[in-house]
Amino acid sequence: MNTRRDRGPLDGVTVVALEQAISAPLCTRHLADLGARVIKVEAPGSGDTTRSYDSVVGGMSAHFTWLNHGKESAALDLKSASDLATFGAMLDAADVFVSNLTPGALDRLGLGVAELARRPKLISVDISGYGQGGAFDHKRAYDLLIQSESGSCSITGTPGNPSKPGIPVADIATGLYAYSAVLAALYDRERTGNGGRIPIAMLDVAAEMMGFALNQVLHGAPEPVPVGMGSPMVAPYGAYTTADGRTAVLGTTSDREWRRLATMIGRPELADEPRYAHNDDRVEVRAELDGIVGAWCSSRTLEEIRSAADDAGIGNAQLNTVRDLADHPQLRDRGRWRDVGTPSGPVPALRPPALAQDWPVRNGSVPALGEHTDAIRDEFGAARISANVD
Amino acid sequence: MNTRRDRGPLDGVTVVALEQAISAPLCTRHLADLGARVIKVEAPGSGDTTRSYDSVVGGMSAHFTWLNHGKESAALDLKSASDLATFGAMLDAADVFVSNLTPGALDRLGLGVAELARRPKLISVDISGYGQGGAFDHKRAYDLLIQSESGSCSITGTPGNPSKPGIPVADIATGLYAYSAVLAALYDRERTGNGGRIPIAMLDVAAEMMGFALNQVLHGAPEPVPVGMGSPMVAPYGAYTTADGRTAVLGTTSDREWRRLATMIGRPELADEPRYAHNDDRVEVRAELDGIVGAWCSSRTLEEIRSAADDAGIGNAQLNTVRDLADHPQLRDRGRWRDVGTPSGPVPALRPPALAQDWPVRNGSVPALGEHTDAIRDEFGAARISANVD
Repeated sequence: MNTRRDRGPLDGVTVVALEQAISAPLCTRHLADLGARVIKVEAPGSGDTTRSYDSVVGGMSAHFTWLNHGKESAALDLKSASDLATFGAMLDAADVFVSNLTPGALDRLGLGVAELARRPKLISVDISGYGQGGAFDHKRAYDLLIQSESGSCSITGTPGNPSKPGIPVADIATGLYAYSAVLAALYDRERTGNGGRIPIAMLDVAAEMMGFALNQVLHGAPEPVPVGMGSPMVAPYGAYTTADGRTAVLGTTSDREWRRLATMIGRPELADEPRYAHNDDRVEVRAELDGIVGAWCSSRTLEEIRSAADDAGIGNAQLNTVRDLADHPQLRDRGRWRDVGTPSGPVPALRPPALAQDWPVRNGSVPALGEHTDAIRDEFGAARISANVD
Repeated sequence: MNTRRDRGPLDGVTVVALEQAISAPLCTRHLADLGARVIKVEAPGSGDTTRSYDSVVGGMSAHFTWLNHGKESAALDLKSASDLATFGAMLDAADVFVSNLTPGALDRLGLGVAELARRPKLISVDISGYGQGGAFDHKRAYDLLIQSESGSCSITGTPGNPSKPGIPVADIATGLYAYSAVLAALYDRERTGNGGRIPIAMLDVAAEMMGFALNQVLHGAPEPVPVGMGSPMVAPYGAYTTADGRTAVLGTTSDREWRRLATMIGRPELADEPRYAHNDDRVEVRAELDGIVGAWCSSRTLEEIRSAADDAGIGNAQLNTVRDLADHPQLRDRGRWRDVGTPSGPVPALRPPALAQDWPVRNGSVPALGEHTDAIRDEFGAARISANVD
């Protein structure tokens, strides 16, 4: 099981993408990671909107570099008959078509449901903000807008100060649902011979992630409030300033852990205090308990706190910056970094998070806009198609 | 393509889960959604820790109900030789084994790498906090701890007030990576005949989602700061109080949209103001622009604002509560709700976010702890196995 092999699990799978920004590009990057050939079709001149976000990575943007290594870029003008014919030939040869265009754009390109259904083996994933039908059908959707509509922002931050999670979680989870849908459909096609169309709405994805909170309000519990660095479900749990000016994050997830924590902070009498015996009770007096844990942390260094918590079997962490993550020993020591290519040379990128031990991973390059246009035209161009059709 | 069929894409796939909390249960719930048989093995007496979070759903918890419908529950004591033999027989019959136990627990159960490798067709996904190796190998990991270590909290909230995203994004994304890994491995097994072991570390998942921010700091950009409801990449973008006391969320993602927004708010002269011409410049004066957009919103109702923004082609949303999401017309009008069973009767649950149009979805029930123990013992019990072995 540990012998390396040459071919990834998606070797031989061809993916065509009409994609922008985060959700669809994340989906197809993971398909490329596992060996699929991904042809990213971009608008000539500007390309994927994230190309112009910034130019920190040797002229390319942080977002675009993150999500597009290992793909080919074909700059095609789908309003021209010739490029549209090339695109049609690509779809004829493709296993998978992924798109996240603005509402109605596929139909305007003549790539609506009926046209795609002409290719019964094609797996086609169509990402939208709000799905088809309903009053929101044609509304624009970005990560912040969907996180606002779905209540995600209302349970993040502090009371009165809602916040958008810094990670674009609606975009990313939509990309991961698209990725898994492609994989489920590839497996299904092995057994049935048929592809199919899979619509995915960002609002539905965000609502799925809110499932725990939805169940609460649907069954009469009060509206959840944001609790900063705390957890709405358990207490004490949070971030505490340390004697060396850093921030320790720790807490308890059960009554048993609470008793261990009380002993750890030198207050064993609290473990026997009936007011704190059950998590439900502790959640009610969250601020009081945060004060007690905070006072203990304020007179110890982060390392002392982490060591004591490890010894007591209490989960603990450091409130890291992004720079801390870049330097994180656990990523470095486990060989999580590799290089991928860019037009200005190799740059570090993380290995994909989920790989079987014998799956090779593609370390492809981030394409310049249209870098593969000529090759794609040559392979799928109108001249070739007209020779094959009729 | 629109004809319904009886069997889901994962019909015939058997999944055994030693799972707790969110990540692994989300993975296996989605496998069940698509037709897999999922046998959840729980500790007798207590079961999955989320069972005791609360009892809002007719005696079951909000979290447990969200993540466990459509599964069978077998309460087995894996420290007893007889139950462990039953469990071994289940693994012999399984296609997939998913676990997210504490570090080292699989080894202590005798279910380490070598033992699992004795079943070459088995696909085994092993979720941990920090992966194998490195100084963090055996550390406890919960969503808040991983989001702290990965910098996710440091880019959420407001400067000086970091926050944990309300959605447990490290847990959920880990579950989605586990889900997609199972699907990729099932597809691979169709072609190679082999299963395999897929380790997934929550820290690696969180780091992947921080890819855009990592690229920024790795290439010399300043440490990102949290911007509340704003976007670090574009401006103006944010949440603004309306005349009717609600909160509108809107903004611009490009210079072209900015010019449309300036006209929309009756300030066409701003569209020509060189200080605001480019997004980079506008990000620098974020607060100033928020003041201008906020003043316009404060004298209009939410509906007036949304209508004007729709007309101008400006993305817009409402800052919803969880209750608003439960009542969201776009979920209701598109038939996103269905009923699933629980021991106390049917409850509403959302349909899975990604389904091909002809895939049936399982509307299974949330199992009581050990509801299927007897049936599972009968099917896989030690008596049967000893008859088959040797």
